[in-house]
Amino acid sequence: MIPKGVATLLPDGTFHRRSIEKEILSAFSRWGYQEVTPPIFEYLDVFSLGVGEEVLDSAYKFIDRATGRIMVLRPDVTPQIARIASTLLADEPRPLRLCYSANVFRHQEEHAGRERELFQLGGELIGLSDAEADAEMIALSIEILQNLGLKDFRITLGQMAFTRGLLRPFMSSPAFYKKILHYVAKKETSQLERWLKQESVNPKTQKEVLSLLDLFGGEDVLKRAAALTDDPECLKGLERLEAVYAILKSAGHQDNILFDLGEVRGFDYYTGTIFEIFSEGVGSELGGGGRYDHLLEKFGEPSASTGFALYIERIQAAMEKTSSEKLSCSGVDMMIAHFANDAEWAIMLAREVRSLGFRTIRKSFNALPFHGVAHADAVSQQIPKIVLLQEGAGTDALQLMDVSTGQAETLNQNDLMARLQPDETTP
Amino acid sequence: MIPKGVATLLPDGTFHRRSIEKEILSAFSRWGYQEVTPPIFEYLDVFSLGVGEEVLDSAYKFIDRATGRIMVLRPDVTPQIARIASTLLADEPRPLRLCYSANVFRHQEEHAGRERELFQLGGELIGLSDAEADAEMIALSIEILQNLGLKDFRITLGQMAFTRGLLRPFMSSPAFYKKILHYVAKKETSQLERWLKQESVNPKTQKEVLSLLDLFGGEDVLKRAAALTDDPECLKGLERLEAVYAILKSAGHQDNILFDLGEVRGFDYYTGTIFEIFSEGVGSELGGGGRYDHLLEKFGEPSASTGFALYIERIQAAMEKTSSEKLSCSGVDMMIAHFANDAEWAIMLAREVRSLGFRTIRKSFNALPFHGVAHADAVSQQIPKIVLLQEGAGTDALQLMDVSTGQAETLNQNDLMARLQPDETTP
Repeated sequence: MIPKGVATLLPDGTFHRRSIEKEILSAFSRWGYQEVTPPIFEYLDVFSLGVGEEVLDSAYKFIDRATGRIMVLRPDVTPQIARIASTLLADEPRPLRLCYSANVFRHQEEHAGRERELFQLGGELIGLSDAEADAEMIALSIEILQNLGLKDFRITLGQMAFTRGLLRPFMSSPAFYKKILHYVAKKETSQLERWLKQESVNPKTQKEVLSLLDLFGGEDVLKRAAALTDDPECLKGLERLEAVYAILKSAGHQDNILFDLGEVRGFDYYTGTIFEIFSEGVGSELGGGGRYDHLLEKFGEPSASTGFALYIERIQAAMEKTSSEKLSCSGVDMMIAHFANDAEWAIMLAREVRSLGFRTIRKSFNALPFHGVAHADAVSQQIPKIVLLQEGAGTDALQLMDVSTGQAETLNQNDLMARLQPDETTP
Repeated sequence: MIPKGVATLLPDGTFHRRSIEKEILSAFSRWGYQEVTPPIFEYLDVFSLGVGEEVLDSAYKFIDRATGRIMVLRPDVTPQIARIASTLLADEPRPLRLCYSANVFRHQEEHAGRERELFQLGGELIGLSDAEADAEMIALSIEILQNLGLKDFRITLGQMAFTRGLLRPFMSSPAFYKKILHYVAKKETSQLERWLKQESVNPKTQKEVLSLLDLFGGEDVLKRAAALTDDPECLKGLERLEAVYAILKSAGHQDNILFDLGEVRGFDYYTGTIFEIFSEGVGSELGGGGRYDHLLEKFGEPSASTGFALYIERIQAAMEKTSSEKLSCSGVDMMIAHFANDAEWAIMLAREVRSLGFRTIRKSFNALPFHGVAHADAVSQQIPKIVLLQEGAGTDALQLMDVSTGQAETLNQNDLMARLQPDETTP
């Protein structure tokens, strides 16, 4: 009945998603990021300034009836933030720290599962070009994941300046270059090797390209990479990566960090330090990001920038893998049950009880006695407590019933409110 | 550069939107509603079970590449919740109280402004057929609006059972019926009159139809309406409306209520009590809802139901009209400035300060002295406080600087943390 790969979250799932969202937005706020809301669709011709072919290919498109122009359901948020920063926020002082909570849309093969509508929370740091800015993206990601209780995650650092530099010999042929990037991204060593031979690439270059796939692991990767080339762009990229790593070490994050210089991510706009986050037992990355120093200029206002995004469903999956307790939003804390004629008292009482934070429903009965029916209702709806009004007695003689035992005690409104003070609230 | 009628919210707007969303979701929770997340697009053939032609006409559609079927970007959430309740939640005990925060999409003429992507927060009460359920929708709407500080709003109550009953003579001709509904909805009395004459409708019926447009005002509307017809469905509808009104009076809401029996709302699925919310100075309704007793059966599980939705942008507009103070998210509370070599101390300090709730950025300087530059940075970014680390001194001799005065005092980390205790936090 519903398309595969789009999300339907029931109460427990939505509650979990909200709690993750709240933690992430709160972390962004503490780090000085302000939330913005980008539109869900954009004109294709404007949006395409910011993203590569592959991303555009995977985007949902339709014709805008009002203008006849092609619209695109955003497949990526970063170009939107870049546009907002370069236009609406062009006059704000830099650096600009912005964050967002937004869903993105990508065509996927059916078998890929729930991945056509993805909830992303991300941040962009606009106007800083230094290693500190790169490190901030990674350190903030780590703080968020740790606050969410995740431990077994690792961050792989890559460097587009190095990787592009190494592949520069191939850039004169875009098709060729794209093919190589594809094999590197997928880490398909044997296919890459076969193909480089078949295309008669010179042996030295073949070796360099293939070694990209081996540049994975700890700190030593940086040294092995430097030994591979004397291209100044490549070496500058490695120096930057070293500086970023030094800052992350200062923050105590070295245990979560690996290097992967064959990492290229799927977005053409990355220019420098990039990273991806992986967690035990979740097949796709939990998030990632990197530096994109030439994206904003496409919207009119050149600026060094970096950013990252987290995929909320995958974080949810990772949390479910590591935690034995299942998050549940339970439901209703209390039912206020009364005879129809006593609605005025009951409504007033419900207002008071809700103001203490109890999730409360009110139920009016047209026949007496109603206590038995109310109890049965509460049982079937798993409501732990009932407050019963006695017919015609106002709020002087209330009964507070524990639904599991069926025991009730009589008390007046003041006593009830005292009893329900916040320290007794169901968390 | 961006399509008209879709939302781009900057930090202040997003902050305001979030605060409204938070209040509404919190009210839903206190009233026992659990949030669910419906998908953003659906198959047209499935979705169209739940909504009328006009709504479908206004929806954005595109072809699903994977299946070749037509997809629709949801123009309305209620049919989605109805589907979820009838399928995924079919086994949950009734009544079911569900709420959502979701954007909906409708084609609109360009001049209609920012109305193609609308943020809705809504609730659905599934499995109750009584007047209490109808009244709950309205009372909850009123509580939400009052909690948000709105005062000058009014709720108009309508009754589809009455209105449809009165128009039953025309139902044999759908085109005719639709035309009448259109004139009634738009309150175009003279055009309706002309057209009824032109179509040679019999004078008694003409009078009844035209009088629909006069059935607007206080409690007396119910009596005037009852005098107009002896159709049992119509009269039953009026009785229900009276019962709903009695409950709302018990809750003290009579001053916010008017009756409008010419109200039809734009959705075909309404069957009983309906309502709309209007506020001084905002052209379109802030929200509305009503009873839809035959919607769930289309998805396999018949159930009496009622619900409502609020339009967050319009509530925001109404709040801006009534409040003189503009909500602002301000920005960053503090900058921690340090020499590059002291990153480890600064990172640790930033962590502590953030944990107290201060929105904090850290800034590393590569040259000494950096105090003047840090101060200038803070001024340009409107950051009220700086904590400066002295080179090589760790956190024993910090300087806390008030940016507006440039005054600084020296203190150690313990003193700083004591100084920053929550009661001093910028709200």
